[in-house]
Amino acid sequence: MAENRIDKFRKERERLNELVLKYSGTNVKRFVNLDWQAYQDGVLPARLKELMGLVTSLVLRCDDCIMYHLIRCREESVTDSELEETLAIGLMVGGSITIPHLRRIWKVWDEMKRGE
Amino acid sequence: MAENRIDKFRKERERLNELVLKYSGTNVKRFVNLDWQAYQDGVLPARLKELMGLVTSLVLRCDDCIMYHLIRCREESVTDSELEETLAIGLMVGGSITIPHLRRIWKVWDEMKRGE
Amino acid sequence: MAENRIDKFRKERERLNELVLKYSGTNVKRFVNLDWQAYQDGVLPARLKELMGLVTSLVLRCDDCIMYHLIRCREESVTDSELEETLAIGLMVGGSITIPHLRRIWKVWDEMKRGE
Amino acid sequence: MAENRIDKFRKERERLNELVLKYSGTNVKRFVNLDWQAYQDGVLPARLKELMGLVTSLVLRCDDCIMYHLIRCREESVTDSELEETLAIGLMVGGSITIPHLRRIWKVWDEMKRGE
Amino acid sequence: MAENRIDKFRKERERLNELVLKYSGTNVKRFVNLDWQAYQDGVLPARLKELMGLVTSLVLRCDDCIMYHLIRCREESVTDSELEETLAIGLMVGGSITIPHLRRIWKVWDEMKRGE
Amino acid sequence: MAENRIDKFRKERERLNELVLKYSGTNVKRFVNLDWQAYQDGVLPARLKELMGLVTSLVLRCDDCIMYHLIRCREESVTDSELEETLAIGLMVGGSITIPHLRRIWKVWDEMKRGE
Repeated sequence: MAENRIDKFRKERERLNELVLKYSGTNVKRFVNLDWQAYQDGVLPARLKELMGLVTSLVLRCDDCIMYHLIRCREESVTDSELEETLAIGLMVGGSITIPHLRRIWKVWDEMKRGE
Repeated sequence: MAENRIDKFRKERERLNELVLKYSGTNVKRFVNLDWQAYQDGVLPARLKELMGLVTSLVLRCDDCIMYHLIRCREESVTDSELEETLAIGLMVGGSITIPHLRRIWKVWDEMKRGE
Repeated sequence: MAENRIDKFRKERERLNELVLKYSGTNVKRFVNLDWQAYQDGVLPARLKELMGLVTSLVLRCDDCIMYHLIRCREESVTDSELEETLAIGLMVGGSITIPHLRRIWKVWDEMKRGE
Repeated sequence: MAENRIDKFRKERERLNELVLKYSGTNVKRFVNLDWQAYQDGVLPARLKELMGLVTSLVLRCDDCIMYHLIRCREESVTDSELEETLAIGLMVGGSITIPHLRRIWKVWDEMKRGE
Repeated sequence: MAENRIDKFRKERERLNELVLKYSGTNVKRFVNLDWQAYQDGVLPARLKELMGLVTSLVLRCDDCIMYHLIRCREESVTDSELEETLAIGLMVGGSITIPHLRRIWKVWDEMKRGE
Repeated sequence: MAENRIDKFRKERERLNELVLKYSGTNVKRFVNLDWQAYQDGVLPARLKELMGLVTSLVLRCDDCIMYHLIRCREESVTDSELEETLAIGLMVGGSITIPHLRRIWKVWDEMKRGE
């Protein structure tokens, strides 16, 4: 069940974020806030910024970051085609080393679509 | 003069692309073509795809790739604010290690704007 | 049992590849094909190209890519010594950050050898 | 139980190190030795070198390397604040792509502290 | 003359930083400030934090970042031996791909020492 | 003139290597020696190992490392086709971000061929 997997991912993420904040000083806390700000609606809509967050996470090959932005893309009603064209750019830029991540992206995306 | 610098960049790039094609076999030639295809208008407009090309080049820290997409962004009439919000995402994702590239991006962008 | 682990890896990989192809457009499909072509026999034999696929995957630190090329190396009858000399180059180029992958490579290789 | 998790990590690491040494030639063996030497007390104390090993592993995003240096930092009686300031530098340099690793670092650190 | 080269580096850096700030919004400006904060004296002294900035820049292979932290290390009276032990860790972690940067580091360091 | 450019590269490299050795301790010196050993004839011939050095340098995108291995490939009488097939693998694995390096590789290769 996708809902369960995503729920589990979200809860673990939240739990650990609290731990990060518990141990971290002002600089780290401010960074986390800035990072969140950067994806808010501006001249470019949040929806598009999430696609940018996804494609940069893809070329840097960070599964957790990918998962987070993928969930956000779903919340922003990104379509299959928009996702596909974004991932195609990531694949061309980053090469076949990104393919294992592409596999996991479509797996989670497919699960999210079925889960509703 | 920005025009000169950009012109020089373009000509050297073209000259070397010919050399790459002269020596390369079918696989490389096809890749170069696919790479070009990925940035054409689709569900997502070329203009947006160039911003994605830019932000992935930024986090992977490739000056030549950055330069190419920056010129394309200018051709696609990307605004200062759109560029700024895109780069802010790149900076948050990729960290301070991207700052030297940010400096060069704004330098070239500023020159391109004055050069017209 | 190595056979089981490798079998499982292969089946999951195949299943997800189908998903990638289901969602992907022409560009991605063509890339996947080009990527496959690049490792076929040419002036350089496939066996050697698989070692190159392995060593690049090692320095870029992608476990799934490593696993795939390691299985292919076994199919191409790469010897222990050939593998060892290739990995030594990867270790020198990429540094100690590659060591966790070296551990997993020899673990799987050892299992593949015992599994037969 | 942290002790168990760390114990398990250590034992698996030792077991695989033996496998690496079994299959590896002189060059790899010597590298492993040099790598160990680099973290011994010198002009800079081992304790500080472990923090350097940790922060480089963080920006290169290798969980196994992080885990190893984190355990060593604990053995060297690194304090929460020293760890926090080191990780803050890693986060600034490496960007938000390092945050999933920060989460896992504090999780393990928290477990190690409770486990005693 | 090292003084000249370093002076030139500093002036260009300052000039471009102004350009970055001219074009950038609040998020980027705040990031630049946080990044600066992270290297100030704390539980760990600034001098040590600069060595950490250097070694992370080395393994991520950013010459401009390296140059900046190297100048700061000199200002903080880092000794040859402290620098050497730090770079040895960077070399082991990051591998031979960092050697071209090691060459440039010692070249600049040597020039800075002679320039006084 | 290619001879001049390559000569200049070699001399600068040698001069800086001496500086590295002057400042470096035993660990770094031993690493440099191990790194050299890894490319000597073994079960795999030096010629092939240089191609591996080249393709790993390509995907890690280090121009100096590329230049060095390219010169060595020429000395080992690597053919155009062998080079091309090796670079095709690097391009597929590493993506379009490697293309600027491909351009510089063929430029230098072409110069080396004409220079004789």
